[in-house]
Amino acid sequence: MTRVLLATKNLGKVAELQRILTGFALEGASYEPGPETGRSFAENALAKAHEGVAHTGLPSVADDSGLAVDALNGMPGILSARWAGRHGDDLANLDLVLGQLADVADGRRGAAFVCAAAYALPDGRSDVVLGELRGTLVREPRGTNGFGYDPIFVPTGYAVTSAELSPDEKDAISHRGQAFRALAPLLTAALSS
Amino acid sequence: MTRVLLATKNLGKVAELQRILTGFALEGASYEPGPETGRSFAENALAKAHEGVAHTGLPSVADDSGLAVDALNGMPGILSARWAGRHGDDLANLDLVLGQLADVADGRRGAAFVCAAAYALPDGRSDVVLGELRGTLVREPRGTNGFGYDPIFVPTGYAVTSAELSPDEKDAISHRGQAFRALAPLLTAALSS
Repeated sequence: MTRVLLATKNLGKVAELQRILTGFALEGASYEPGPETGRSFAENALAKAHEGVAHTGLPSVADDSGLAVDALNGMPGILSARWAGRHGDDLANLDLVLGQLADVADGRRGAAFVCAAAYALPDGRSDVVLGELRGTLVREPRGTNGFGYDPIFVPTGYAVTSAELSPDEKDAISHRGQAFRALAPLLTAALSS
Repeated sequence: MTRVLLATKNLGKVAELQRILTGFALEGASYEPGPETGRSFAENALAKAHEGVAHTGLPSVADDSGLAVDALNGMPGILSARWAGRHGDDLANLDLVLGQLADVADGRRGAAFVCAAAYALPDGRSDVVLGELRGTLVREPRGTNGFGYDPIFVPTGYAVTSAELSPDEKDAISHRGQAFRALAPLLTAALSS
Protein backbone atom coordinates (compact mmCIF):
# COMPACT_ATOMS: atom_id res chain seq x y z
CA MET A 1 0.00 0.00 0.00
CA THR A 2 1.39 3.40 -0.98
CA ARG A 3 2.76 5.46 1.89
CA VAL A 4 1.28 8.95 1.82
CA LEU A 5 2.10 11.78 4.18
CA LEU A 6 -0.92 13.52 5.67
CA ALA A 7 0.40 17.01 6.33
CA THR A 8 -1.17 17.63 9.73
CA LYS A 9 -0.48 17.11 13.41
CA ASN A 10 -4.22 17.07 14.20
CA LEU A 11 -4.92 13.54 15.42
CA GLY A 12 -8.65 13.91 14.87
CA LYS A 13 -8.03 14.58 11.21
CA VAL A 14 -5.61 11.67 10.84
CA ALA A 15 -8.15 9.21 12.23
CA GLU A 16 -10.98 10.66 10.14
CA LEU A 17 -9.02 10.63 6.88
CA GLN A 18 -7.57 7.15 7.34
CA ARG A 19 -11.19 5.91 7.42
CA ILE A 20 -11.82 7.67 4.08
CA LEU A 21 -8.52 7.10 2.23
CA THR A 22 -8.59 3.35 2.70
CA GLY A 23 -6.32 2.70 -0.27
CA PHE A 24 -3.32 4.52 1.22
CA ALA A 25 -1.17 4.14 4.35
CA LEU A 26 -1.34 7.59 5.93
CA GLU A 27 1.46 8.95 8.09
CA GLY A 28 1.01 12.08 10.21
CA ALA A 29 3.49 14.94 10.08
CA SER A 30 6.45 14.80 12.47
CA TYR A 31 7.78 18.24 11.46
CA GLU A 32 6.42 21.55 12.68
CA PRO A 33 4.16 22.99 9.95
CA GLY A 34 4.74 26.61 8.95
CA PRO A 35 2.13 29.32 9.46
CA GLU A 36 -0.92 29.28 7.18
CA THR A 37 -0.71 32.47 5.18
CA GLY A 38 -2.94 31.72 2.17
CA ARG A 39 -6.08 33.68 1.38
CA SER A 40 -8.30 30.66 0.74
CA PHE A 41 -8.82 27.07 1.86
CA ALA A 42 -7.46 25.84 -1.51
CA GLU A 43 -4.32 27.98 -1.31
CA ASN A 44 -3.58 26.73 2.21
CA ALA A 45 -4.24 23.07 1.38
CA LEU A 46 -1.89 23.17 -1.63
CA ALA A 47 0.83 24.92 0.39
CA LYS A 48 0.56 22.29 3.14
CA ALA A 49 0.76 19.40 0.66
CA HIS A 50 3.86 20.89 -1.01
CA GLU A 51 5.37 21.47 2.43
CA GLY A 52 4.78 17.78 3.23
CA VAL A 53 6.69 16.72 0.12
CA ALA A 54 9.52 19.11 0.94
CA HIS A 55 9.90 17.69 4.45
CA THR A 56 9.50 13.97 3.68
CA GLY A 57 9.90 13.28 -0.04
CA LEU A 58 6.62 11.32 0.14
CA PRO A 59 3.46 11.93 -1.89
CA SER A 60 1.52 14.19 0.44
CA VAL A 61 -2.09 15.08 1.02
CA ALA A 62 -3.42 17.94 3.11
CA ASP A 63 -6.62 19.69 3.82
CA ASP A 64 -7.62 23.12 4.95
CA SER A 65 -11.08 23.18 6.40
CA GLY A 66 -13.25 25.47 8.38
CA LEU A 67 -16.64 26.82 9.24
CA ALA A 68 -18.08 29.57 7.05
CA VAL A 69 -20.83 31.36 9.02
CA ASP A 70 -23.33 33.39 6.99
CA ALA A 71 -23.80 36.02 9.72
CA LEU A 72 -20.01 36.42 9.94
CA ASN A 73 -19.60 36.98 6.16
CA GLY A 74 -18.13 33.51 5.75
CA MET A 75 -15.73 33.73 8.69
CA PRO A 76 -14.15 32.07 10.75
CA GLY A 77 -13.26 30.48 7.37
CA ILE A 78 -9.52 29.97 7.01
CA LEU A 79 -9.10 31.29 10.57
CA SER A 80 -11.39 28.62 12.09
CA ALA A 81 -8.62 26.94 14.08
CA ARG A 82 -7.41 30.21 15.58
CA TRP A 83 -10.66 32.13 15.81
CA ALA A 84 -10.30 32.85 19.53
CA GLY A 85 -6.84 34.29 18.91
CA ARG A 86 -4.48 31.36 19.36
CA HIS A 87 -4.23 28.13 17.42
CA GLY A 88 -6.14 24.95 18.26
CA ASP A 89 -8.35 25.81 21.23
CA ASP A 90 -11.54 24.14 19.95
CA LEU A 91 -13.64 25.02 22.97
CA ALA A 92 -12.65 28.68 23.00
CA ASN A 93 -13.30 28.95 19.25
CA LEU A 94 -16.75 27.39 19.55
CA ASP A 95 -17.67 29.53 22.58
CA LEU A 96 -16.58 32.64 20.72
CA VAL A 97 -18.81 31.91 17.71
CA LEU A 98 -21.75 31.29 20.06
CA GLY A 99 -21.07 34.62 21.80
CA GLN A 100 -20.76 36.51 18.52
CA LEU A 101 -24.08 35.03 17.33
CA ALA A 102 -25.93 35.49 20.63
CA ASP A 103 -28.26 38.12 19.16
CA VAL A 104 -28.55 36.47 15.73
CA ALA A 105 -32.06 35.04 15.23
CA ASP A 106 -32.67 31.38 14.49
CA GLY A 107 -33.55 32.02 10.84
CA ARG A 108 -30.18 33.67 10.20
CA ARG A 109 -27.84 31.07 11.68
CA GLY A 110 -26.87 29.33 8.44
CA ALA A 111 -23.32 28.05 7.99
CA ALA A 112 -21.24 25.63 5.94
CA PHE A 113 -18.34 23.38 6.72
CA VAL A 114 -15.90 23.74 3.82
CA CYS A 115 -12.89 21.57 3.01
CA ALA A 116 -10.18 21.95 0.41
CA ALA A 117 -8.29 18.66 -0.10
CA ALA A 118 -4.99 18.74 -2.00
CA TYR A 119 -2.24 16.38 -3.02
CA ALA A 120 1.32 17.13 -4.08
CA LEU A 121 3.87 14.70 -5.56
CA PRO A 122 7.65 14.77 -5.39
CA ASP A 123 7.73 15.64 -9.12
CA GLY A 124 5.83 18.84 -8.43
CA ARG A 125 2.38 17.87 -9.69
CA SER A 126 -0.54 18.83 -7.46
CA ASP A 127 -4.31 19.28 -7.46
CA VAL A 128 -7.02 20.48 -5.10
CA VAL A 129 -10.78 19.85 -4.77
CA LEU A 130 -13.51 21.33 -2.54
CA GLY A 131 -16.25 19.77 -0.41
CA GLU A 132 -19.04 21.58 1.45
CA LEU A 133 -21.70 20.65 4.00
CA ARG A 134 -24.50 23.15 4.68
CA GLY A 135 -26.27 23.42 8.02
CA THR A 136 -27.31 25.72 10.85
CA LEU A 137 -25.74 26.65 14.18
CA VAL A 138 -27.52 25.84 17.44
CA ARG A 139 -27.10 27.80 20.68
CA GLU A 140 -25.76 25.06 22.97
CA PRO A 141 -23.09 22.43 22.15
CA ARG A 142 -24.43 18.88 21.84
CA GLY A 143 -22.58 15.60 21.33
CA THR A 144 -19.09 14.32 21.97
CA ASN A 145 -17.97 12.87 18.62
CA GLY A 146 -15.93 14.87 16.14
CA PHE A 147 -13.96 17.98 16.99
CA GLY A 148 -13.85 21.69 16.26
CA TYR A 149 -17.26 23.22 15.65
CA ASP A 150 -19.07 19.86 15.29
CA PRO A 151 -21.04 20.23 18.57
CA ILE A 152 -22.89 23.37 17.38
CA PHE A 153 -23.46 22.41 13.72
CA VAL A 154 -26.65 20.67 12.58
CA PRO A 155 -26.36 19.48 8.96
CA THR A 156 -29.28 20.39 6.69
CA GLY A 157 -31.89 17.62 6.83
CA TYR A 158 -30.69 16.32 10.20
CA ALA A 159 -31.96 16.90 13.75
CA VAL A 160 -28.64 16.18 15.47
CA THR A 161 -25.29 17.94 15.50
CA SER A 162 -22.21 16.65 13.68
CA ALA A 163 -20.88 15.67 17.10
CA GLU A 164 -23.93 13.45 17.65
CA LEU A 165 -23.38 11.53 14.40
CA SER A 166 -21.37 8.31 14.44
CA PRO A 167 -18.01 8.52 12.67
CA ASP A 168 -19.41 6.55 9.71
CA GLU A 169 -22.48 8.75 9.44
CA LYS A 170 -20.32 11.85 9.58
CA ASP A 171 -17.85 10.64 6.95
CA ALA A 172 -20.71 9.88 4.56
CA ILE A 173 -21.86 13.51 4.44
CA SER A 174 -19.00 15.62 5.74
CA HIS A 175 -17.19 18.33 3.79
CA ARG A 176 -13.94 16.47 4.43
CA GLY A 177 -15.40 13.14 3.32
CA GLN A 178 -16.73 14.67 0.11
CA ALA A 179 -13.45 16.41 -0.68
CA PHE A 180 -11.18 13.43 0.01
CA ARG A 181 -13.44 10.95 -1.77
CA ALA A 182 -13.12 13.23 -4.81
CA LEU A 183 -9.37 13.57 -4.32
CA ALA A 184 -8.60 9.86 -3.90
CA PRO A 185 -9.06 8.79 -7.56
CA LEU A 186 -7.15 11.86 -8.74
CA LEU A 187 -4.23 10.91 -6.50
CA THR A 188 -4.38 7.27 -7.57
CA ALA A 189 -4.32 8.26 -11.24
CA ALA A 190 -1.46 10.71 -10.70
CA LEU A 191 0.63 8.13 -8.81
CA SER A 192 0.24 5.58 -11.62
CA SER A 193 1.12 7.88 -14.51
CA MET B 1 -31.10 74.88 21.16
CA THR B 2 -33.08 71.83 20.09
CA ARG B 3 -32.94 68.92 22.50
CA VAL B 4 -32.00 65.74 20.67
CA LEU B 5 -31.69 62.29 22.15
CA LEU B 6 -28.50 60.45 21.27
CA ALA B 7 -29.56 56.82 21.48
CA THR B 8 -26.48 55.38 23.17
CA LYS B 9 -25.09 54.77 26.64
CA ASN B 10 -21.50 54.89 25.31
CA LEU B 11 -19.99 57.99 26.94
CA GLY B 12 -17.15 58.08 24.42
CA LYS B 13 -19.66 58.44 21.62
CA VAL B 14 -21.64 61.13 23.45
CA ALA B 15 -18.55 63.27 23.94
CA GLU B 16 -17.39 62.75 20.36
CA LEU B 17 -20.77 63.55 18.80
CA GLN B 18 -21.45 66.63 20.93
CA ARG B 19 -18.25 68.09 19.44
CA ILE B 20 -19.62 67.44 15.94
CA LEU B 21 -23.33 68.23 16.37
CA THR B 22 -22.71 71.68 17.81
CA GLY B 23 -26.14 72.96 16.82
CA PHE B 24 -28.06 70.54 19.06
CA ALA B 25 -28.18 69.81 22.79
CA LEU B 26 -27.52 66.08 22.98
CA GLU B 27 -28.85 63.91 25.76
CA GLY B 28 -27.62 60.36 26.33
CA ALA B 29 -30.03 57.45 26.70
CA SER B 30 -31.27 56.65 30.21
CA TYR B 31 -33.19 53.54 29.09
CA GLU B 32 -31.70 50.14 28.41
CA PRO B 33 -31.35 49.75 24.62
CA GLY B 34 -32.69 46.53 23.08
CA PRO B 35 -30.44 44.04 21.31
CA GLU B 36 -29.03 45.02 17.92
CA THR B 37 -30.53 42.54 15.49
CA GLY B 38 -30.16 44.30 12.13
CA ARG B 39 -28.08 42.93 9.27
CA SER B 40 -26.29 46.19 8.48
CA PHE B 41 -24.96 49.32 10.14
CA ALA B 42 -27.77 51.33 8.52
CA GLU B 43 -30.51 48.98 9.71
CA ASN B 44 -29.18 49.09 13.28
CA ALA B 45 -28.75 52.88 13.32
CA LEU B 46 -32.32 53.45 12.13
CA ALA B 47 -33.69 50.96 14.66
CA LYS B 48 -31.81 52.69 17.49
CA ALA B 49 -33.04 56.15 16.43
CA HIS B 50 -36.67 54.96 16.29
CA GLU B 51 -36.20 53.29 19.68
CA GLY B 52 -34.96 56.62 21.08
CA VAL B 53 -38.14 58.36 19.89
CA ALA B 54 -40.30 55.59 21.35
CA HIS B 55 -38.66 55.92 24.77
CA THR B 56 -38.40 59.72 25.02
CA GLY B 57 -40.64 61.41 22.46
CA LEU B 58 -37.62 63.52 21.46
CA PRO B 59 -36.06 63.79 18.01
CA SER B 60 -33.37 61.13 18.18
CA VAL B 61 -30.08 60.42 16.49
CA ALA B 62 -28.11 57.21 16.63
CA ASP B 63 -25.17 55.60 15.00
CA ASP B 64 -24.02 52.09 14.39
CA SER B 65 -20.33 51.90 13.72
CA GLY B 66 -17.63 49.34 13.50
CA LEU B 67 -14.45 48.09 12.00
CA ALA B 68 -14.60 46.20 8.70
CA VAL B 69 -11.40 44.18 8.32
CA ASP B 70 -10.52 43.03 4.79
CA ALA B 71 -8.90 39.76 5.96
CA LEU B 72 -12.04 39.02 8.03
CA ASN B 73 -14.40 39.53 5.06
CA GLY B 74 -15.59 42.83 6.50
CA MET B 75 -16.09 41.57 10.04
CA PRO B 76 -16.19 42.41 13.01
CA GLY B 77 -18.59 44.82 11.23
CA ILE B 78 -21.91 45.11 13.05
CA LEU B 79 -20.50 42.80 15.74
CA SER B 80 -17.55 45.11 16.52
CA ALA B 81 -18.70 45.89 20.06
CA ARG B 82 -19.22 42.23 20.95
CA TRP B 83 -16.49 40.61 18.87
CA ALA B 84 -14.90 38.82 21.82
CA GLY B 85 -18.28 37.34 22.74
CA ARG B 86 -19.76 39.81 25.20
CA HIS B 87 -20.73 43.44 24.72
CA GLY B 88 -18.42 46.36 25.29
CA ASP B 89 -15.07 44.87 26.26
CA ASP B 90 -12.90 47.12 24.04
CA LEU B 91 -9.61 45.59 25.10
CA ALA B 92 -10.73 41.99 24.58
CA ASN B 93 -12.19 42.88 21.16
CA LEU B 94 -8.97 44.57 20.03
CA ASP B 95 -6.79 41.73 21.35
CA LEU B 96 -8.94 39.20 19.54
CA VAL B 97 -8.58 40.97 16.17
CA LEU B 98 -4.80 41.13 16.68
CA GLY B 99 -4.73 37.39 17.46
CA GLN B 100 -6.87 36.52 14.45
CA LEU B 101 -4.58 38.56 12.19
CA ALA B 102 -1.30 37.31 13.72
CA ASP B 103 -0.33 35.42 10.54
CA VAL B 104 -1.76 38.01 8.13
CA ALA B 105 1.06 39.83 6.32
CA ASP B 106 1.51 43.60 6.46
CA GLY B 107 0.27 44.09 2.90
CA ARG B 108 -3.07 42.41 3.68
CA ARG B 109 -4.04 44.27 6.85
CA GLY B 110 -6.43 46.79 5.28
CA ALA B 111 -9.56 47.84 7.14
CA ALA B 112 -12.18 50.56 7.29
CA PHE B 113 -14.04 52.24 10.09
CA VAL B 114 -17.66 52.53 8.96
CA CYS B 115 -20.44 54.57 10.53
CA ALA B 116 -24.14 54.73 9.75
CA ALA B 117 -25.74 57.85 11.28
CA ALA B 118 -29.51 58.05 11.49
CA TYR B 119 -32.20 60.36 12.80
CA ALA B 120 -35.82 59.65 13.60
CA LEU B 121 -38.55 62.17 14.45
CA PRO B 122 -41.69 61.75 16.56
CA ASP B 123 -43.79 62.00 13.38
CA GLY B 124 -42.09 58.89 12.00
CA ARG B 125 -39.75 60.48 9.45
CA SER B 126 -36.18 59.18 9.42
CA ASP B 127 -33.02 59.07 7.32
CA VAL B 128 -29.58 57.47 7.43
CA VAL B 129 -26.17 58.29 5.91
CA LEU B 130 -22.83 56.46 5.83
CA GLY B 131 -19.25 57.57 6.54
CA GLU B 132 -16.08 55.55 6.04
CA LEU B 133 -12.40 55.92 6.95
CA ARG B 134 -9.89 53.56 5.30
CA GLY B 135 -6.64 52.49 6.94
CA THR B 136 -4.47 49.57 8.00
CA LEU B 137 -4.13 47.58 11.22
CA VAL B 138 -0.85 47.57 13.13
CA ARG B 139 0.34 44.73 15.37
CA GLU B 140 0.65 46.56 18.70
CA PRO B 141 -1.82 49.09 20.20
CA ARG B 142 -0.56 52.68 20.28
CA GLY B 143 -2.11 55.78 21.80
CA THR B 144 -4.64 56.53 24.51
CA ASN B 145 -7.22 58.77 22.84
CA GLY B 146 -10.41 57.43 21.34
CA PHE B 147 -11.89 54.04 22.17
CA GLY B 148 -12.68 50.70 20.55
CA TYR B 149 -10.23 49.71 17.84
CA ASP B 150 -8.61 53.18 17.57
CA PRO B 151 -5.25 52.04 19.05
CA ILE B 152 -4.58 49.55 16.22
CA PHE B 153 -5.96 51.58 13.26
CA VAL B 154 -3.69 53.83 11.18
CA PRO B 155 -5.75 55.98 8.79
CA THR B 156 -4.55 56.02 5.17
CA GLY B 157 -2.03 58.83 4.70
CA TYR B 158 -1.17 59.01 8.41
CA ALA B 159 1.73 57.53 10.40
CA VAL B 160 -0.12 57.45 13.74
CA THR B 161 -3.09 55.47 15.03
CA SER B 162 -6.55 56.96 15.55
CA ALA B 163 -5.78 56.80 19.28
CA GLU B 164 -2.74 59.02 18.77
CA LEU B 165 -4.74 61.74 17.01
CA SER B 166 -6.14 64.63 19.03
CA PRO B 167 -9.93 64.64 19.32
CA ASP B 168 -10.13 67.53 16.79
CA GLU B 169 -7.87 65.75 14.30
CA LYS B 170 -9.88 62.58 14.65
CA ASP B 171 -13.26 64.30 14.22
CA ALA B 172 -12.03 65.93 11.00
CA ILE B 173 -11.43 62.61 9.26
CA SER B 174 -13.35 59.98 11.19
CA HIS B 175 -16.14 57.81 9.81
CA ARG B 176 -18.38 59.13 12.56
CA GLY B 177 -17.42 62.74 11.86
CA GLN B 178 -18.15 62.32 8.17
CA ALA B 179 -21.49 60.63 8.75
CA PHE B 180 -22.80 63.07 11.37
CA ARG B 181 -21.62 66.16 9.47
CA ALA B 182 -23.66 64.80 6.55
CA LEU B 183 -26.62 64.02 8.82
CA ALA B 184 -26.74 67.38 10.63
CA PRO B 185 -28.17 69.49 7.77
CA LEU B 186 -30.68 66.74 6.95
CA LEU B 187 -31.89 66.76 10.56
CA THR B 188 -32.01 70.56 10.67
CA ALA B 189 -34.08 70.64 7.48
CA ALA B 190 -36.43 67.91 8.70
CA LEU B 191 -36.99 69.66 12.05
CA SER B 192 -37.93 72.94 10.33
CA SER B 193 -40.40 71.51 7.82
